[in-house]
Amino acid sequence: MDTPDVLAWRDGHIEALDQTALPHQVRVLRITTVDELVEAITTLAVRGAPVLGATGAFGVALAVRQGDREGWDAARLDAEVKRIADARPTAVNLRREVRIVAALIPRGRDAVEAAALEVNRFAVTASQRLSRRGADWLRQACAGSDKLRVHTHCNTGSLACLGWGTALGVIRALHSDGALGHVIVDETRPLLQGARLTCWELGQLGIEHRLACDGAAPFLISQGMADAVVVGADRVAANGDVANKIGTYGLALAAREAGIPFLVAAPESTLDPDTPSGAAIPIERRPDDEVTVPAAPAGTRALNVAFDVTPWALVTALVTEERLITNDEGVSPRPTARS
Amino acid sequence: MDTPDVLAWRDGHIEALDQTALPHQVRVLRITTVDELVEAITTLAVRGAPVLGATGAFGVALAVRQGDREGWDAARLDAEVKRIADARPTAVNLRREVRIVAALIPRGRDAVEAAALEVNRFAVTASQRLSRRGADWLRQACAGSDKLRVHTHCNTGSLACLGWGTALGVIRALHSDGALGHVIVDETRPLLQGARLTCWELGQLGIEHRLACDGAAPFLISQGMADAVVVGADRVAANGDVANKIGTYGLALAAREAGIPFLVAAPESTLDPDTPSGAAIPIERRPDDEVTVPAAPAGTRALNVAFDVTPWALVTALVTEERLITNDEGVSPRPTARS
Repeated sequence: MDTPDVLAWRDGHIEALDQTALPHQVRVLRITTVDELVEAITTLAVRGAPVLGATGAFGVALAVRQGDREGWDAARLDAEVKRIADARPTAVNLRREVRIVAALIPRGRDAVEAAALEVNRFAVTASQRLSRRGADWLRQACAGSDKLRVHTHCNTGSLACLGWGTALGVIRALHSDGALGHVIVDETRPLLQGARLTCWELGQLGIEHRLACDGAAPFLISQGMADAVVVGADRVAANGDVANKIGTYGLALAAREAGIPFLVAAPESTLDPDTPSGAAIPIERRPDDEVTVPAAPAGTRALNVAFDVTPWALVTALVTEERLITNDEGVSPRPTARS
Repeated sequence: MDTPDVLAWRDGHIEALDQTALPHQVRVLRITTVDELVEAITTLAVRGAPVLGATGAFGVALAVRQGDREGWDAARLDAEVKRIADARPTAVNLRREVRIVAALIPRGRDAVEAAALEVNRFAVTASQRLSRRGADWLRQACAGSDKLRVHTHCNTGSLACLGWGTALGVIRALHSDGALGHVIVDETRPLLQGARLTCWELGQLGIEHRLACDGAAPFLISQGMADAVVVGADRVAANGDVANKIGTYGLALAAREAGIPFLVAAPESTLDPDTPSGAAIPIERRPDDEVTVPAAPAGTRALNVAFDVTPWALVTALVTEERLITNDEGVSPRPTARS
């Protein structure tokens, strides 16, 4: 894509594509302080579970630089690093990569920055391996279909995940195999990441797609409009329950009813052995006005739940950069060697 | 409510509250020609299956008046009446009430206008009987809950149905019994009838409510946030399949999964014995830009399906002004005496 990097470390600061401005503006944020970084994460200027992980890694490097400039003591640096880790509660990747890189703080700035760059590089190659494995499995699972029609949700491409993405990476691998029919994209209210970001990425890639309202998805699936549903994840609990962008659970119910595969694509860093089940995943509640503005009468209150939990029983398979786990095998989110 | 009538016949023309302007403006449309009427129906300025039925009845009277003024022959009048009947394909009420009133054209203008007014009066009393019966049944079905929490979709109140409404009429009856906790309202993309109209009506009635994105509904239901789902219908096929606003089917899947009642509230005029099953119900496709504007990149195409079909197997009960049919009895949409 002829656009700036989604995320980069340049001259001791973070550059990030402002995802709230897309698709109408391509704007790069120059982030030099922890305050600016937390703001960018909270407003979703920087978003997507794997990108949040890489951002957290750079964030530690950024905090170390800011601490050097401003003379922070160790306690202050710790507190600032924790603010980054806590900026979004549901995605486990952010917290995990912050922890991994922060462990290197005693070794000094260069070690921290090298580790953060490595997290970033790893995310890119993980995405490509995951995409290839997911596409190969889907072609087997839907062997009757020559050109797969895939339903997806939210944004899980290179904007969210670096490299090829997760769910959108799988779709991109199918496309590069000549095995993709079309993609149905949920608009993904309230912040419309599907309409704004996924349609933009698919357009850039020349992939045929149609946008649908979130409420339409279960019916479109019931009408045979898709051969499979492929989504990303923000956290996978130890029992396999999947937290992902609000709207995912309804797709899983519809896929089971229609008898089509429901594939979750996520890097190993999304698997969280410390969370026993979906019930223990913290679900972010966001401001009412994301839902109420501009249509509802003044004073209307909302239930703005940013993620939902899909029970493992509704997931046909989970693909990561390391493995593919189908439902009948049970899930085993044992950390791989790296993490 | 201290607002103009939703629909009225005055001095030989139709007055209708412009539902595209709510909740920010209260604007009354003065409709004097078939062209204006078809435009009002197509743009959803006038909407809601029972209101469409009453509008169709007045529409025949309007066409007769316009024909008298402009000297139409019988063939032209027939063609204009047919345009009204066809203005929205999914709701059966429009077509049915047009047919009933048009049968009186040979008896002259006064007979037509009297019949149209009778259709309107009947809709009001039907709504109240249906609301009472539905509320009584829900209180039995959810006997463990003192204050029922109800999830609903789209707009089914007095704006859609005259009188008390259908699903919202049931909610209003629960409220008047002191048996209502709160209401969760789906925003109902793309045209946001839930956010714009249902929140407005509930606010006027002083009924506690929260607005949610359509994609959030299945998860909220799975989390025990509602004791029952109550929706309206645009057409009920002979086998009990229910066409209703897009987004309904996902609620039905979620209600079954959560083990809570899924109640469909609709007047008898919505039951269509001539349509054998949901597969035979014409589903309106609407313009792409209702979905793509303003978020998607220019040139994005959409799948804008305005209604979905919920199989009878997912419906716990159907309530009309005449009866309550629970799923285990099978459905019998035999026309009642009047229709």
